[in-house]
Amino acid sequence: MTTGLEPIFFPKSIAVIGGSEKPGTIGRALVSNLLGLEGGKKFSGSVYIVNIRGGTAFGMPVYKSILDIPYDVDLAVIAVPAKVVPTVLEECGKKSVKGAIIISAGFGETGEEGRKLEDVLNKIAKKWNFRYLGPNCLGIYNTLNNMDTIFNPSDRQDKPEPGDIAFLSQSGALGAAFLDFCSKENVGLSVFISYGNAANIDESDLIEYLGQETHTKVITMYVEGVKDGRKFYSLAKKVSLKKPIIIYKAGKTSLGERAVRSHTGSLAGNLRVFLGAVKQAGIVLVDQLMDLFACAKGFSKLPLPKNDEVIIVTNGGGAGVVTTDALAREGIKLKDISVEAQEKLREFLPASASVLNPIDILGDAPASRYKKTIEIAINEKPGALIVIALLQSPAINHNEFIKDMSELRSSIDTPLITILPGGRKAREVAMALERNNVPTYDDPETAVRVLKYLIQYSKWLRHQKTSE
Amino acid sequence: MTTGLEPIFFPKSIAVIGGSEKPGTIGRALVSNLLGLEGGKKFSGSVYIVNIRGGTAFGMPVYKSILDIPYDVDLAVIAVPAKVVPTVLEECGKKSVKGAIIISAGFGETGEEGRKLEDVLNKIAKKWNFRYLGPNCLGIYNTLNNMDTIFNPSDRQDKPEPGDIAFLSQSGALGAAFLDFCSKENVGLSVFISYGNAANIDESDLIEYLGQETHTKVITMYVEGVKDGRKFYSLAKKVSLKKPIIIYKAGKTSLGERAVRSHTGSLAGNLRVFLGAVKQAGIVLVDQLMDLFACAKGFSKLPLPKNDEVIIVTNGGGAGVVTTDALAREGIKLKDISVEAQEKLREFLPASASVLNPIDILGDAPASRYKKTIEIAINEKPGALIVIALLQSPAINHNEFIKDMSELRSSIDTPLITILPGGRKAREVAMALERNNVPTYDDPETAVRVLKYLIQYSKWLRHQKTSE
Repeated sequence: MTTGLEPIFFPKSIAVIGGSEKPGTIGRALVSNLLGLEGGKKFSGSVYIVNIRGGTAFGMPVYKSILDIPYDVDLAVIAVPAKVVPTVLEECGKKSVKGAIIISAGFGETGEEGRKLEDVLNKIAKKWNFRYLGPNCLGIYNTLNNMDTIFNPSDRQDKPEPGDIAFLSQSGALGAAFLDFCSKENVGLSVFISYGNAANIDESDLIEYLGQETHTKVITMYVEGVKDGRKFYSLAKKVSLKKPIIIYKAGKTSLGERAVRSHTGSLAGNLRVFLGAVKQAGIVLVDQLMDLFACAKGFSKLPLPKNDEVIIVTNGGGAGVVTTDALAREGIKLKDISVEAQEKLREFLPASASVLNPIDILGDAPASRYKKTIEIAINEKPGALIVIALLQSPAINHNEFIKDMSELRSSIDTPLITILPGGRKAREVAMALERNNVPTYDDPETAVRVLKYLIQYSKWLRHQKTSE
Repeated sequence: MTTGLEPIFFPKSIAVIGGSEKPGTIGRALVSNLLGLEGGKKFSGSVYIVNIRGGTAFGMPVYKSILDIPYDVDLAVIAVPAKVVPTVLEECGKKSVKGAIIISAGFGETGEEGRKLEDVLNKIAKKWNFRYLGPNCLGIYNTLNNMDTIFNPSDRQDKPEPGDIAFLSQSGALGAAFLDFCSKENVGLSVFISYGNAANIDESDLIEYLGQETHTKVITMYVEGVKDGRKFYSLAKKVSLKKPIIIYKAGKTSLGERAVRSHTGSLAGNLRVFLGAVKQAGIVLVDQLMDLFACAKGFSKLPLPKNDEVIIVTNGGGAGVVTTDALAREGIKLKDISVEAQEKLREFLPASASVLNPIDILGDAPASRYKKTIEIAINEKPGALIVIALLQSPAINHNEFIKDMSELRSSIDTPLITILPGGRKAREVAMALERNNVPTYDDPETAVRVLKYLIQYSKWLRHQKTSE
């Protein structure tokens, strides 16, 4: 069995087995996605339609079997009833496909019978020397070649632009919602993978693949249980040395574990063992679902903190206090501002400003006051800078603030996070900043959790490198 | 000293002292807000401009002193330099104003000198028998009469529509950001109050006032420290019996407390004493800043839970697991589904659906399957219902879902919360549901925390009523 998953992600040609023009079918959504017919982008390779009914669809011939296609096929995307899948997969083997994605449900997730059917599929794949993703999955959305098997209707399922974040999801539905959310928030993905039952290609294989995939900088993952714990931890540890793996683990309570069993049927496993192993492997385990997204943004846009002392610069005392509380609760230190820096700050800050940390440059601060203050703060060599701006203030020029923060961000190797509480206008500024790799959050607590995880990963990485 | 604050919130006439037409000034923003000149709504009463410079502004006469106004003035809004405020306030007394809002900064927040100046102001107000809000505040945004002293420019400060949530903020800047956020999220407010240094009218007075203010259903508050702990707790307890008070307390760590001292100069006080008293007073103390907003929405739209057992209905197993984990961590129980109800569910749900709690009606669930399932779930008499819908699924008709949930919400007295993870389309559905009083959240964890606070407040209230 080959371990190369490239043909699954970068096929030159795809056959959609179960493809159709019939409205409302998965087969239609798959074909129309790949052809770029309904708002999406056209897949960069060839697409063939296979359906037992034959005829034509979208003005193209419909082959009754993959074996009837007079061209090479790299990847088969299979969306036919479960019972038919073994036959179809055998034909795929005969056609010498290099991989398959089995969308069809009705396998291991339904019980013992279904698991046996997966064994049959595995034997076929082994015999013909290819691997497959799924079954019971949404498949792949690869922004690099527009390969898109996420079959939800385009009027209710948005898909993000290209980026450097990979997202792996054991749950297809939650994964699709995450895709949709990333699109709304303008956060780009390299690839999204819904791997379903992981009967053949499992989460460890995917982590290993993404570890060497050059477009992916950060790997994020929703997981309920892993197939092979030992394999997972050892591969994850290797990959964590190269790029961060951020995981939300569902089934962390006994009630949640029971719900996992009735959902994917996977065993959540011994949680304490899992948590310990995860920590050793350098995996960032987030505690709240939305932190997957918040961290993906922060990790992909920022350098790693070199120490765990933070400086806060704010134009609002209250927001400074809330952020200080959040840092203290997460065990992150506030850096003491040196006497020299305090003196420099006093030179241009109003008398009632605070030159201690949090540095409060007051509500009447123009953008230039932020810039001067941050330049002094950077010289203090903090592990990270948190810049809070209440943009409702009349004093601050938004465009100047965006320009200054973006320039600072690209000229320093200290992570710079902005917190911009507010509404419509604050969000516009946030979007502009994020396009320039300044991660921005609505609220202090989320920003601080992201920072906590950044510090944690950075520490692990330094520890690994010094203990080599 | 009169305790009636009505003239501060519902004046028939307002004099803006320091009012001006000069662009970029607070005086201009105050006048233009009240006259409804720049996007806002016109204040329902009379507005007069007072400025030592005299002349005209906005085509209106500018009086050199409030004493020159030939009409009665109920409320003075004062935005002149701190040193001048005592003189101006004395004139307000002579004019027999019924209240004042002192926007000007440069008082207690700057140190001992400033505190003495506040004593002077208090003597004047006592002598003339009126009360004042501030100093060092943004003042009031009252959606009932469009009285708006929030002077941030309208191109960067949105203000929400009328609603039944009051928001009190010790921090003006954070309060303004909250206003802006509520507007973006389409959550209506009754009144917003930035009370600044609370030199005369303090947070306890405001809580008491809002307790009897008929348009306010829920009171939310950002506070760093209270002026008079005993007064606050006894008044808050009385008000909590009538309507929920939801507070975010800043300065909960020793670092945060230090930051509070350098911000408002108020003492955060003994935290353990504060937390204990707050709990006894029935106050809902939220742990994260954004939970103020999340709770405001939930508490204003929902009846209180009658017990603490919850039923989850979901079309996505993964989201069901995440929600189960969140409930378990917050100590909220999942209700056991009765055998009878399980049988009823089995009658129409697909074989692979889960009729245990979380009830998983599967990804191919149409809206009608939600409705039938929820009707059965309600008969189980849970304390609350959590309905999760992954709206990316092609199976669910969004309009039908909105209609059904809205009808259910208005016909039952069980709190119904929806969780709609996703992007643009999910948000559209959320907005429609919230217009019909179905509170909706992006993520399971936030929804579950709101539910925890609802259960906590409901328990406190029942305990008070049974122990009467």
